[in-house]
Amino acid sequence: MHHPINLFEYEHLAKEHLSQMALDYYSSGAWDEVTLRDNRAAFERVKLHPRMLVDVSDRYLNTSILGQSLKLPLLIAPMAFQCLAHPDGEVATALAAASAGVGMVLSTLATKTMEEVALPNSLQWFQLYIHKDRGLTRALVERANAVGYKAICLTVDAPVLGRRERDQRNQFTLPPGLHAANLATLNIPHAQGESGLFTYFAQQLNPAITWRDLEWLQSISPLPLVIKGILRGDDAVRAVEYGAKAIVVSNHGGRQLDGAIASLDALAAIVAAVDGRVEVLMDGGIRRGTDILKAIALGAKAVLIGRPVLWGLAVNGKAGVSHIISLLQHELDVAMALTGCPSLEDIDSSLVQLDLKS
Amino acid sequence: MHHPINLFEYEHLAKEHLSQMALDYYSSGAWDEVTLRDNRAAFERVKLHPRMLVDVSDRYLNTSILGQSLKLPLLIAPMAFQCLAHPDGEVATALAAASAGVGMVLSTLATKTMEEVALPNSLQWFQLYIHKDRGLTRALVERANAVGYKAICLTVDAPVLGRRERDQRNQFTLPPGLHAANLATLNIPHAQGESGLFTYFAQQLNPAITWRDLEWLQSISPLPLVIKGILRGDDAVRAVEYGAKAIVVSNHGGRQLDGAIASLDALAAIVAAVDGRVEVLMDGGIRRGTDILKAIALGAKAVLIGRPVLWGLAVNGKAGVSHIISLLQHELDVAMALTGCPSLEDIDSSLVQLDLKS
Amino acid sequence: MHHPINLFEYEHLAKEHLSQMALDYYSSGAWDEVTLRDNRAAFERVKLHPRMLVDVSDRYLNTSILGQSLKLPLLIAPMAFQCLAHPDGEVATALAAASAGVGMVLSTLATKTMEEVALPNSLQWFQLYIHKDRGLTRALVERANAVGYKAICLTVDAPVLGRRERDQRNQFTLPPGLHAANLATLNIPHAQGESGLFTYFAQQLNPAITWRDLEWLQSISPLPLVIKGILRGDDAVRAVEYGAKAIVVSNHGGRQLDGAIASLDALAAIVAAVDGRVEVLMDGGIRRGTDILKAIALGAKAVLIGRPVLWGLAVNGKAGVSHIISLLQHELDVAMALTGCPSLEDIDSSLVQLDLKS
Amino acid sequence: MHHPINLFEYEHLAKEHLSQMALDYYSSGAWDEVTLRDNRAAFERVKLHPRMLVDVSDRYLNTSILGQSLKLPLLIAPMAFQCLAHPDGEVATALAAASAGVGMVLSTLATKTMEEVALPNSLQWFQLYIHKDRGLTRALVERANAVGYKAICLTVDAPVLGRRERDQRNQFTLPPGLHAANLATLNIPHAQGESGLFTYFAQQLNPAITWRDLEWLQSISPLPLVIKGILRGDDAVRAVEYGAKAIVVSNHGGRQLDGAIASLDALAAIVAAVDGRVEVLMDGGIRRGTDILKAIALGAKAVLIGRPVLWGLAVNGKAGVSHIISLLQHELDVAMALTGCPSLEDIDSSLVQLDLKS
Repeated sequence: MHHPINLFEYEHLAKEHLSQMALDYYSSGAWDEVTLRDNRAAFERVKLHPRMLVDVSDRYLNTSILGQSLKLPLLIAPMAFQCLAHPDGEVATALAAASAGVGMVLSTLATKTMEEVALPNSLQWFQLYIHKDRGLTRALVERANAVGYKAICLTVDAPVLGRRERDQRNQFTLPPGLHAANLATLNIPHAQGESGLFTYFAQQLNPAITWRDLEWLQSISPLPLVIKGILRGDDAVRAVEYGAKAIVVSNHGGRQLDGAIASLDALAAIVAAVDGRVEVLMDGGIRRGTDILKAIALGAKAVLIGRPVLWGLAVNGKAGVSHIISLLQHELDVAMALTGCPSLEDIDSSLVQLDLKS
Repeated sequence: MHHPINLFEYEHLAKEHLSQMALDYYSSGAWDEVTLRDNRAAFERVKLHPRMLVDVSDRYLNTSILGQSLKLPLLIAPMAFQCLAHPDGEVATALAAASAGVGMVLSTLATKTMEEVALPNSLQWFQLYIHKDRGLTRALVERANAVGYKAICLTVDAPVLGRRERDQRNQFTLPPGLHAANLATLNIPHAQGESGLFTYFAQQLNPAITWRDLEWLQSISPLPLVIKGILRGDDAVRAVEYGAKAIVVSNHGGRQLDGAIASLDALAAIVAAVDGRVEVLMDGGIRRGTDILKAIALGAKAVLIGRPVLWGLAVNGKAGVSHIISLLQHELDVAMALTGCPSLEDIDSSLVQLDLKS
Repeated sequence: MHHPINLFEYEHLAKEHLSQMALDYYSSGAWDEVTLRDNRAAFERVKLHPRMLVDVSDRYLNTSILGQSLKLPLLIAPMAFQCLAHPDGEVATALAAASAGVGMVLSTLATKTMEEVALPNSLQWFQLYIHKDRGLTRALVERANAVGYKAICLTVDAPVLGRRERDQRNQFTLPPGLHAANLATLNIPHAQGESGLFTYFAQQLNPAITWRDLEWLQSISPLPLVIKGILRGDDAVRAVEYGAKAIVVSNHGGRQLDGAIASLDALAAIVAAVDGRVEVLMDGGIRRGTDILKAIALGAKAVLIGRPVLWGLAVNGKAGVSHIISLLQHELDVAMALTGCPSLEDIDSSLVQLDLKS
Repeated sequence: MHHPINLFEYEHLAKEHLSQMALDYYSSGAWDEVTLRDNRAAFERVKLHPRMLVDVSDRYLNTSILGQSLKLPLLIAPMAFQCLAHPDGEVATALAAASAGVGMVLSTLATKTMEEVALPNSLQWFQLYIHKDRGLTRALVERANAVGYKAICLTVDAPVLGRRERDQRNQFTLPPGLHAANLATLNIPHAQGESGLFTYFAQQLNPAITWRDLEWLQSISPLPLVIKGILRGDDAVRAVEYGAKAIVVSNHGGRQLDGAIASLDALAAIVAAVDGRVEVLMDGGIRRGTDILKAIALGAKAVLIGRPVLWGLAVNGKAGVSHIISLLQHELDVAMALTGCPSLEDIDSSLVQLDLKS
């Protein structure tokens, strides 16, 4: 195969670089994968109405999130176990992100420690799962702050783990030598006829967390709170009221509740409900620069990409991730030129119009 | 094949355990099977809008139907001739249902007698076809009451049998040794170029039944009356007025009138028309726990499942049926956790929104 | 193959009984055959909302058209060259129709003379193409009246012939021994790289015909006038104003204007525009008894079927046509039982509801 | 293969006459080719409501654009590098267009000089890309005027070139012996891992052009200005305000911004916004005479066809282009007869109705 020129080609190529268990873990969605597919389809349903004869000789793709600048409206989504894709794992991802000027959200379930990954001059957030063990949770938050992560990104859509049946069939667990590096005393178990990660969630994570617990979380850390996994306007309002500084509209890449609304379809109502009080980001299905533009036109401040980063990492480590980012950067740049948007602020809702016909 | 982990895998596996005639009888729909397919597609059209940060550490899946408790909002739909799937037939199904705390509706056309199947401590209903022979019909109803069935579930969508062309081609009839056990003197005939069951219906069942006959039915039995096969709001209102205590929204699994509206699509209007006066159940196309959740969100008190029970029965008898139920239970439990619903009462209409786009 | 049990199986079987040129001529639509396919798809889009607990022990499928009774709301559509399917051609079709008590419309382009086909006790109409030669046209009309046809069915959607590209490639013409029997002096030519029928239309038929010519037509014949090929409400109103006694909503089986609205989709607006002043019939895509029921629910008094009759004729002559009719009769009978309609008058618009979702 | 009888067959046949690089260049769209496909699908979504019993014995397909008459409401769209299809290239196309009485728009990137192609008695426009080199641009405009082109057709949707990934993989450039004949000193470069044309655009074309530059353009040429590439009503109004005499609704055949609205879907809003002040044309997806009729019914004065002309050119040079035009002419003629439209003025909006159902 020739040198990949888009994210789909990376996805194709990555299959040669991954074990079946890792490929299944990365690519699968929950149950029948309806939401996984719909996340993509939602982007195809949105049609663009480009504006012509605007001076687009210079394009400005930079933005800021929570007051911190980014060269692109892009963050790497939190994804567990990146050493399954490449020995350098999350470290490679972080270096590629920092070098490109995009953000990165490090997963609680990283296979590198947050200390190894930390690049304090970059926009890095720490993604948090609240464990039943509050001491452990507090320790994670404190370490994140200590080594320079800029926000706590709390995932709220996983009180239990979604059922990814490929993992269940594979009895997914980490291969020897890999472990959840930030959780020294805990292991992803091997479970008979079951995904080890599903078992881990059932044993360790706390499904009793409610909005009230955000007060506790904010009391133990000076870091701003980002809530990831919101799909309803009323929940978004509640997040604002409970102190969140940003919201990530997400269905966890179709990996939690199959049948959930596509992220892009949920975006506009949430943007309207939030009404500018906090920044709204989204993830789920982004594969092209035009997808980023569509999300921004529907009100997102930035987007997160997940699986494509893993494909880049699997194919070529840090360089692969860098290439994934630069492909999206180039595509967004061209898309902005072709829609008459010299800057991200020019991407307004008149550019999109939900196609009600197909 | 590995151990099945969802209902679709049971369906696949069951093909190895059934004669072609039995498989065709169980799986087919009327005419072009448009409604059969649409029953499933309707669930995929409904998107979920989950609620986050609710304490879901305990989930309560129990409910009550006609005042009787169930551990799950689930009943086994009435299905004829279950001994075609397994020698234990309806007895195995009933034991599995009772042991799981779900309901069961026994078909008039069972291959085990209602006395063999009866488990008086369980929620068991007797499904009734009103025969031309009123004496026979009365005898069925009286036996059902005598051995402890808790309701008469009158099927109203079959004044004649729907045309299932696979049965017609197979000249469907019962193999030697099987018969409609509750109808000692009657047999499913063997008919040239015709489904024997179609012929049976034409000969024995009464297509003259009207709402007025519900008065007669209620006069001969103290059991509450459940009307199964309603697809219109006005008919639902009439059922209430004529004394029904519950309604099952159903198109008979796509086996009667091809082209009929999908059950799920018919549900909301019927719930609105009934306006809480009686309990509304539904069947048709349920294959996942999320499907149950969607039906409840659209107003159903509980759902009935049909064919998957037969696949479980064919694969592994009572244990197969038990596994089918426990798969649905587990999926519903996860779905409730992921939508922020600790109990069935929390499943409200805000969780669903008909997708008008695809 | 077993004995066919529905119209689709007849279509399949007919392929073995027809020359490629005849099969192509019968089965093809204009250009890309979009309307041909959409005629069928339109029926699948309409969902039925059946009514329960109506006494359907007797079903009455009879109706009347222009005051003449029919045992079924069904006519055989005018179709040219039926001897391509079977040596008995239109004579066989007419005998089968009469024996079943359904109507028949004989094509101007029949391969049997209208005198051979005439069965004066039956509902037979003569389909007319107005030729440039008015004397010829007048003679056709007078002969039709003389031998007992009950109406002139004027086809208005063919000022030129639609482009059926399979005929063009086949250089369609009649094989030796067949000719347009009612047009003694005219022949379907053989044209290089062209459909002979297309050439015939261009040479002989009059594309200058307007509504005014209906006055002339009515002046030369006492027979009531039926206008076939209407797809717009305003044209339907005009037909009424110019004296038509019935209207056939039709797109000529998708053979004239590709991209035209499906007949069923055009029906309701025309019924509303006509407002009961004349009878409205429809054709295009009818393959099941439920299709007839849907058309009636949308306001048609009766329907016409075309191609399936040719498949029956090809497979088994008159007996094949009879079987096609009896299959539809049986299916309509079952469909009426299952929708709670003992008579055609009971088939009201509440039974159908256009599915706006798919 | 037999002699092609429609444009799709020409497309199929052309594959045998073109190098893979040329075929890919001609047939590809931007990125995922969503808009390329949707341009076609949009035509299938529009259904026709034909009018009957109109005298269509004579059909008038002629029109005028910018005061100049055409025998058909058709122009050849500007397409680069036509000598890739046939040695006679744009000269053959021009001769065929002139002989058929249709218009032609010559591309800036023609492989024949505008002087070679000019036929001053015909409707020929010169398509302009504004280069960074204003002197070069002015020279092109002056030459166009000098040799008799009747308008400048400014392409506004290409401030940068769209990403056609097949060209990128092929490292598309012109083969030896071909060059952009109107741009003597410039060449399409050969670029490693890149489309040479993409590089050319980045180097030579001016992405800073705005509406204001239309004043400059009109100041250097007496020719009327046509703006090609508008997809929004507000842009169309701006074009009128800045002096354009006609607008071409276009997404550049799906080759620039993938995800852009289909041309046909954009048409009606633009026609409404322009409100008769200038003529509106469209291109994108026209393959049948009925497509032309649909575009006119939605308000277009004429349409442009692109790729099919290249297929005709590849298969048979000038004769192939002539045949493509005559096929469309014949199809439009038949479509007008079948919709009751003796002239283009009779093609009104009542003939079309957007199908909201599929």
